[in-house]
Amino acid sequence: MPSTQSGAVAKLYRTWLAGPGADEPIHDQRQWDVLTAEPGGVDYLETAVAGQPALWAVPHGCATDRVLLCVHGGGFVSGSIHTHRKMFAHLAKATGVRALLVGYPLLPEGAYPVPVDRAFAGYRALLDEGVSAGHIALAGDSAGAGPLFGAQLRAREAGLPLPAATLALSPWVDMEVVGATMETNREVEALFNQPWVGQLAAGYLAGADPRDPHANALHADITGFGPVFVQVGAHEVLLDDSRRLAEHAEKAGVEVRLDVFPEMQHTFQMMAGRAPEADDAIGRLAAWLRPLLGL
Amino acid sequence: MPSTQSGAVAKLYRTWLAGPGADEPIHDQRQWDVLTAEPGGVDYLETAVAGQPALWAVPHGCATDRVLLCVHGGGFVSGSIHTHRKMFAHLAKATGVRALLVGYPLLPEGAYPVPVDRAFAGYRALLDEGVSAGHIALAGDSAGAGPLFGAQLRAREAGLPLPAATLALSPWVDMEVVGATMETNREVEALFNQPWVGQLAAGYLAGADPRDPHANALHADITGFGPVFVQVGAHEVLLDDSRRLAEHAEKAGVEVRLDVFPEMQHTFQMMAGRAPEADDAIGRLAAWLRPLLGL
Repeated sequence: MPSTQSGAVAKLYRTWLAGPGADEPIHDQRQWDVLTAEPGGVDYLETAVAGQPALWAVPHGCATDRVLLCVHGGGFVSGSIHTHRKMFAHLAKATGVRALLVGYPLLPEGAYPVPVDRAFAGYRALLDEGVSAGHIALAGDSAGAGPLFGAQLRAREAGLPLPAATLALSPWVDMEVVGATMETNREVEALFNQPWVGQLAAGYLAGADPRDPHANALHADITGFGPVFVQVGAHEVLLDDSRRLAEHAEKAGVEVRLDVFPEMQHTFQMMAGRAPEADDAIGRLAAWLRPLLGL
Repeated sequence: MPSTQSGAVAKLYRTWLAGPGADEPIHDQRQWDVLTAEPGGVDYLETAVAGQPALWAVPHGCATDRVLLCVHGGGFVSGSIHTHRKMFAHLAKATGVRALLVGYPLLPEGAYPVPVDRAFAGYRALLDEGVSAGHIALAGDSAGAGPLFGAQLRAREAGLPLPAATLALSPWVDMEVVGATMETNREVEALFNQPWVGQLAAGYLAGADPRDPHANALHADITGFGPVFVQVGAHEVLLDDSRRLAEHAEKAGVEVRLDVFPEMQHTFQMMAGRAPEADDAIGRLAAWLRPLLGL
């Protein structure tokens, strides 16, 4: 059984599916952040990366020369550096590093390749600032995970060194939307379904090839990438995205870890500070990442 | 008619009254902050004032030598520097000054005089830091408004200069809970009622006299205090707290302004960035305050 607290994730998703009506000015904001507790002991500094809003989350006493570059999810139609502030701050605090959350415009303005470009701009800004590639890890949830891989392809193409590691939380990377769990997890998933994810993919691609390697990590040559940690809920229709991403990385010779959390929903880590499963997941990510960043 | 957006305030209050059940791990957090939009362009720095958590909200480009000292509401049983972060940041941003939100323990630990002591500690910390009294305004909503007056009594007793102004948003100051609107607004109020406010008062007083001037601004000698701006919703059972506070200030020779917002609920300013009435209220506070701070 999921913890009572983790049950809040499905509950929130159901309120979204039930609405929004004209009288639901709160829920139509898709406020994922109501799920997440304040981590505490973290400062937040707004900035801009290549003209886009970005947010530094700086845990007190952290190693300021190590950075987690974060790209939020939300299906490219919701979410922001603010809705995902607390979740990524929990991760940064547990790891003992700064986090830089890069924003990007939502659809339709934010169609592919905009989020990839924004993630890459964030990475390049960190290098320009003097942070060494080996002291940077990329982290993204859901739709935010795909651009992490596209950005690393861009970095390689530009002759830049690659980051130390990639953290993919409930990643959505398959723009063909053909995972078997789209069907087999249909009844236990609280949020998504294949037609909806298909619509989001069409909106994101805006005519691009669904197998474009910069848009679909499952079709990218990720040889030589740093270690990848994938976390996913067992009740997600997107479960197969994680499984196939892990297989794809393994075939490319990339060190990969896949943790499937029983009975968890999509991006259950948003319950950080409230649900034991989320805190466990954040703890695993931090413990895995610290030595890769030389901590 | 209230705007659709302002209707969200009553809606949220109803979800609180309907719950919390064991299956409501979100709403039992009393997340006022879901109402408020991110102001944007504001940095947040956690700090401590006399050992209690406090939060700086620093709008980009603000006058850093002017400070709004903020005490949050929540009936002394809910709320925090985090739940009220965005609302006070909207106010600070509109005014063009920094805000310092001082935290305090909730009941039962936080019974009178703890919140008064915390507000006073915040004020003294600002003076010790070199901010001039004339460049400080105090702001508080609901239960947070009372301690603003208690803290100024403490300052006067300590021979310290008084701040430039006081902003009271839907203030709850009457610990006897005898306002006539407790009854006359019973049907239109979405949150409070007399028995409940009475319980909160008993918890706060913890045996102290309900007319103790440091606990009840209506019985305090506020002669010589700076100008006071009181805002209140016309549908509040606490409407008479505002009316009597304004009358009390007037009798004491204190410059006072009372704005009653038609059909608004308790602390409707929490819809800042979303509802026109809240933005109007914030705008009035800022326009009134700026010249008092020499801006």
